Amino acid sequence: MAAKAEKSGVALRPHFKTHQSADIANWFKEEGISKATVSSVEMATYFADNGWHDITIAFPYNPLEHKSIEQLAQRIKLNVLIESEESLKHINDNINSTLGYFIKIDVGTGRTGITSSQFNVLPKLRSKNPKHELVGLLAHAGHAYKKIDRAEALKIYSQSVEILSQAKSLLGDQHLMLSYGDTPTCSLLDDFSTVNEIRPGNFVFYDAIQNFYGSCGISDIAVCMACPVVAIHKDRNEIVVYGGGVHFSKDSIKGSDSPYGLVVTLTPSGWQQEPIAKFVRLSQEHGIISGSDNFISSLKIGDLVGILPVHSCMAADLQGSYRSLSGMRLSKLNKE
Amino acid sequence: MAAKAEKSGVALRPHFKTHQSADIANWFKEEGISKATVSSVEMATYFADNGWHDITIAFPYNPLEHKSIEQLAQRIKLNVLIESEESLKHINDNINSTLGYFIKIDVGTGRTGITSSQFNVLPKLRSKNPKHELVGLLAHAGHAYKKIDRAEALKIYSQSVEILSQAKSLLGDQHLMLSYGDTPTCSLLDDFSTVNEIRPGNFVFYDAIQNFYGSCGISDIAVCMACPVVAIHKDRNEIVVYGGGVHFSKDSIKGSDSPYGLVVTLTPSGWQQEPIAKFVRLSQEHGIISGSDNFISSLKIGDLVGILPVHSCMAADLQGSYRSLSGMRLSKLNKE
Repeated sequence: MAAKAEKSGVALRPHFKTHQSADIANWFKEEGISKATVSSVEMATYFADNGWHDITIAFPYNPLEHKSIEQLAQRIKLNVLIESEESLKHINDNINSTLGYFIKIDVGTGRTGITSSQFNVLPKLRSKNPKHELVGLLAHAGHAYKKIDRAEALKIYSQSVEILSQAKSLLGDQHLMLSYGDTPTCSLLDDFSTVNEIRPGNFVFYDAIQNFYGSCGISDIAVCMACPVVAIHKDRNEIVVYGGGVHFSKDSIKGSDSPYGLVVTLTPSGWQQEPIAKFVRLSQEHGIISGSDNFISSLKIGDLVGILPVHSCMAADLQGSYRSLSGMRLSKLNKE
Repeated sequence: MAAKAEKSGVALRPHFKTHQSADIANWFKEEGISKATVSSVEMATYFADNGWHDITIAFPYNPLEHKSIEQLAQRIKLNVLIESEESLKHINDNINSTLGYFIKIDVGTGRTGITSSQFNVLPKLRSKNPKHELVGLLAHAGHAYKKIDRAEALKIYSQSVEILSQAKSLLGDQHLMLSYGDTPTCSLLDDFSTVNEIRPGNFVFYDAIQNFYGSCGISDIAVCMACPVVAIHKDRNEIVVYGGGVHFSKDSIKGSDSPYGLVVTLTPSGWQQEPIAKFVRLSQEHGIISGSDNFISSLKIGDLVGILPVHSCMAADLQGSYRSLSGMRLSKLNKE
């Protein structure tokens, strides 16, 4: 991803909400990356404490956190997101430190941001306070998270750029950045030269749903949960593992016959890529895996099976830390 | 629930996975409760450290945790769950301390446990090691988690008791306990005199899905998330709140027009019971609430709305702590 960004002449500002790990963030540093995206003030503070000094919080500005935002903006280059005069006024009235901000543009997802039909508000979103600088326009193509091929990804990217460029043109400022990013289109495309930065995040691990969508191969998935077998039900060709909604989240892949993740064989050095059984149900702590006679007979209680999570961001959020294949513990931000 | 159990002459061994809080557990102590159910060795250790000395881990015995189980069994009265000779043999071979165990019976849920057609295995699940005592038979009616009325609850309870009693009779031991529990049937019924203990857990908070199922009223729901409004979209009558899958889990109520929780008005002393808008979509950090013109117009960015979670056990698991209505911080077990 760093090579693609470099070739396109754009910055890579990866979304760190996927891993929430200072140790994993260091791998990005080794690739020459110095900018990060996060989704909360808490995450921004954590990464600032761990040597990241240029962070965008890609979640709408929350007035209730203005004090933490101000404190953070005093020590790093911080950008926030706004999409209304109300939020900008709150920043102007309450934050005394230097702070950058992006205007969030809705490029078709219908979640947050200003749609093109509302672009008449854009001129009002220019700050009159020189401390608060409009850095650019930011979009997240949430509607790219579906079964997608290169042609469809290109269509979504091009439409997004068109909408972002229209907003920039209306604001009449050539210095405004266009920030774009999501894992599916950033994975399927190579040329991002019509924007200024990309912000994919999930690609650091990928997961079963990205594989189902077509944005990665199974061999690209870089995170696996080792789940102990706690019950074997030969009569219904199922095993029960210690691994449920509190470990994986309750996300699922609609239309997949293994909706809660991909089941793989663990090996001393990692795991085999080929799925060997189906993760068919899960409750709070239990995971139910369905498999062939051979699969069921090969296991005993206490064995570990590998599961490539359905949604790695959600599963990682639920874990206290990671372990690398060489046995090293990798830190993670945790709730207090 | 304590009064119901007492009137039925049975023990209440509430499931603490719902709150995972030593402070909230103390409220049970004040009601004369001294036994607890948990779903992990980690939770059992946490509650043992906080003065609970009679705990059942209502999750199949995990051989990989035998050392922690043994350590815990040395200092408290601990029960585990088994459903195979393999697990019992592992306990006999690896655990030297006194340990109680229940045999898990499948009363119709099809998740874990021995079905009545497999009861010929029961005599083999009697430990020959006097340190490891078969305490009783345990069931969880997971199939009661649906739209349910008193008659249906009674049917599920009665069928469960029949299956448990059949197992007890086959084992020919009058001292074996029957342990039963789930929030829907324990909420809808009053008489549990045909078992020895009940283990509901969710009832401490209840939630939107239990309300939808019919096992509680909205006024019984005792936990609420305060979520800041971060974006207002008058054009589509929606607001965006800071409250998504990493806060609520991705659980949802199929068939509800407010599938991700109930939206209520916060007041200085708590919240109003009447839902005022619909929680219609959620992604990782964003919650999307749909409401009337009046509702949308009444809000500004930074206001807090109350959300009664769809599934309180999952939402609580995702929080670092609680705050009581009087402003007191309530502790919670957290991941490391």
